[in-house]
Amino acid sequence: MNEILPIPERVINELRAVVGAENALIDLEDRLAYSIDGTWVERLPQVVVLPTTAAQVGTVVVIAGREGIAITPRGSSSGLSGGALPGRGGIALSMARMRRIIEISRADQVAVVEPGVITGELQRAVEAEGLFYPPDPSSLGVSAIGGNIAENAGGARCLKYGVTGDYVMALQVVLASGAIIRVGGRTVKNVTGYNLRSLFVGSEGTLGIVTEATLRLLPKPRHTLTLAAEFMEIEDAAQAVTAMLMSGVLPVAVEIMDATTLACVEDLLRMGLPLDVGALLLVSADGNHLDGVRADLALLGQVCRDQGARAVQVAATGAESDALWRARRSIAPALARRKPNKLGEDIAVPRSRIPAMVRAIRRIAAEHDLLIPIYGHAGDGNLHPNILCNKHDSEEMARVRRAAGEIFAEAVALGGTLSGEHGIGLLKKEFLEADLGATQIAVMRAVKDALDPQGILNPGKIFPTGVSDW
Amino acid sequence: MNEILPIPERVINELRAVVGAENALIDLEDRLAYSIDGTWVERLPQVVVLPTTAAQVGTVVVIAGREGIAITPRGSSSGLSGGALPGRGGIALSMARMRRIIEISRADQVAVVEPGVITGELQRAVEAEGLFYPPDPSSLGVSAIGGNIAENAGGARCLKYGVTGDYVMALQVVLASGAIIRVGGRTVKNVTGYNLRSLFVGSEGTLGIVTEATLRLLPKPRHTLTLAAEFMEIEDAAQAVTAMLMSGVLPVAVEIMDATTLACVEDLLRMGLPLDVGALLLVSADGNHLDGVRADLALLGQVCRDQGARAVQVAATGAESDALWRARRSIAPALARRKPNKLGEDIAVPRSRIPAMVRAIRRIAAEHDLLIPIYGHAGDGNLHPNILCNKHDSEEMARVRRAAGEIFAEAVALGGTLSGEHGIGLLKKEFLEADLGATQIAVMRAVKDALDPQGILNPGKIFPTGVSDW
Repeated sequence: MNEILPIPERVINELRAVVGAENALIDLEDRLAYSIDGTWVERLPQVVVLPTTAAQVGTVVVIAGREGIAITPRGSSSGLSGGALPGRGGIALSMARMRRIIEISRADQVAVVEPGVITGELQRAVEAEGLFYPPDPSSLGVSAIGGNIAENAGGARCLKYGVTGDYVMALQVVLASGAIIRVGGRTVKNVTGYNLRSLFVGSEGTLGIVTEATLRLLPKPRHTLTLAAEFMEIEDAAQAVTAMLMSGVLPVAVEIMDATTLACVEDLLRMGLPLDVGALLLVSADGNHLDGVRADLALLGQVCRDQGARAVQVAATGAESDALWRARRSIAPALARRKPNKLGEDIAVPRSRIPAMVRAIRRIAAEHDLLIPIYGHAGDGNLHPNILCNKHDSEEMARVRRAAGEIFAEAVALGGTLSGEHGIGLLKKEFLEADLGATQIAVMRAVKDALDPQGILNPGKIFPTGVSDW
Repeated sequence: MNEILPIPERVINELRAVVGAENALIDLEDRLAYSIDGTWVERLPQVVVLPTTAAQVGTVVVIAGREGIAITPRGSSSGLSGGALPGRGGIALSMARMRRIIEISRADQVAVVEPGVITGELQRAVEAEGLFYPPDPSSLGVSAIGGNIAENAGGARCLKYGVTGDYVMALQVVLASGAIIRVGGRTVKNVTGYNLRSLFVGSEGTLGIVTEATLRLLPKPRHTLTLAAEFMEIEDAAQAVTAMLMSGVLPVAVEIMDATTLACVEDLLRMGLPLDVGALLLVSADGNHLDGVRADLALLGQVCRDQGARAVQVAATGAESDALWRARRSIAPALARRKPNKLGEDIAVPRSRIPAMVRAIRRIAAEHDLLIPIYGHAGDGNLHPNILCNKHDSEEMARVRRAAGEIFAEAVALGGTLSGEHGIGLLKKEFLEADLGATQIAVMRAVKDALDPQGILNPGKIFPTGVSDW
């Protein structure tokens, strides 16, 4: 799989026969459209294939295996670690045409979906039935469920509700052999054999290709309220996060935005965000009883005041709350206006170590003369220090890389990890061993080799190769 | 691993040197004490080893690997599928001496424990800190966390809170090579590499031996209220379960007990359970605000009445609520008074199929002239039809086996699975292929072979061998 050989015309014709000529794309302009994701990296596929059924996927995988061609599945390509980029050429397998919501069952509280379904569309569809699909990556307006599953995407509400994998009950998966299996089931509990379901979730398309998912749903809480708490010092905000989590109330979300982030978002949205503070916390609570939710939020607000918040404002209306959350979701486009590129990091640390992590990031930013806005899911200890950069400035990119390495090392030293919700993909694999150690990586490699002995499924991802893909 | 050879004296001496002579037991009476679990099956180990550290476990595994000796870890041996029985002789590795609660962190909301810690002890310890470890297998007074992890144990509260695996953040695991790794971490989110954590959970000691676990904790809800709803027909109770789950309230638990179960429990406890009903539902709701919990429970009670409940009684006091739950937890000893043995099944079906499953079990019981009390976690679709029997009555055991096979087949036909929370172990492996199919089992086998190429870790479990272990 090391040298990328041209794909013979006969194989292209075979792929065309499987999915239709219009769904096997080889023109450069088409392939360029599938060479990018949410990072700055570009990797060109040799052919783009857009199947509509698991059977088609199975046939494509069999062809790829027979010919030794890499195959990289992709959803909406909003990923932030390069997981959906065809790192070794070959086939970009777009799931964009597999986007049916097959079923929403109120009685079983499940949704059955194809991998190309957009997360936000699924949420709206289930909410129309009084149900709730909690995982809410910031990209939910564009990201696909299949990609969410591949990276085990998180989001703000994960503090209370958990990550994508916590909602995956069953998967239909095309294996490297082309065989189609179903793992998990339509039951809440299932301990029949090994938990392959959770093994496929977050495996970034390296162990199998998800062609259908059965997702657990919850009753939709009737009320969600949000507050914004302003802190002069980001360290105080970080302390407030820990204090809130010891208050006895489990918030839905506790999000942090530092001064730089606030300035960038205000610049984009002009919504009157405070620009003279060190950090803003957004805190939500939910439930079926309005009085209870109000009491919970009041308690959380009091904790913020006790920890030095300058002001705590409870959103009085749904519109006010929505505006605050729109600010949060606008961070990525807002940062993009400052510098052309960014390395969006995704470290997670134990919650009690957030203040230490924030201090370390600020020190590293100063030492390398880089602008690193800090925001993220503080309640989960999951921070997104975004290193703003220009990929064409090689001197700056060298500093970015050193800073990224130091941030990763600091997170691991604090008992944390490289990635909370974005995955390893291409961009973090060179840092993997420092987090997991060689023995654990060897176990993962053994699992990979057991499920994909030829190494055709999304090669070049997750595992360190000794070569940087930056 | 097929023929069980004697373990040479020199190897016994080596094991004694590792754990101390008093912790490597070879006398028959000692070994007999480690030959049983919560089933009727007995499997004698050749030596019982009781380590106190992961390093000792690692050394024992190295010795076992070198000598080709099977090694079967066990917690408190309350398991219901034979998972902890030394199916191929060898070493019974008891974790009973590794029972320290190493840490309870309020700030990070985690507990770090050794595998021998009793589940109920952990719950009391964290509740003293205002925290909450939700998984509550009925055996929690005796079962160990390590066993809970090995089988991915559930319990009543799993309806709202999920199973053991949902609370496992990190594991220290001794691999088949004797190497010690840590998988997962102390962060709520972690997508760094494959999810080995969830792969080890529920793997019944066949992939590695857990020597330490970091468990996620929640704030302890301040109020829990319980109601009991009496139904003349069990089918109506089953319908009420589905209706409650569509009400918009997520109960903590919805438990069902049929008439036979109620009679057995009343016989044991003499607490005044209704004996003229078809089924009783126990329903709990919790939260931090008493008014809200009361309103939720009132709504659930109304749903029961709408579905034909003869009476709905809300426990007015904590003591009343505790009594109801004590009844639920007394089912196993109560059934044991009726017949000397029982096959405690553990099927799970989609919630909407509970009525159909109940009807099928009653039909199968009648056809095979067997007493099969039905109870379980109805809210999860996880039923425990217990086939009462006498293991010395071979004609009856043949009927038990046919009935068990038919119940499994019916569960799978209804979109369900063999086991919701007890695992496969020895007793259900012959039914595995009907549930998972040969291809999925081959994938699991490939994972097993990748992690334990010699097959020394708990051999004879999970995978069908063509030989029954009944």
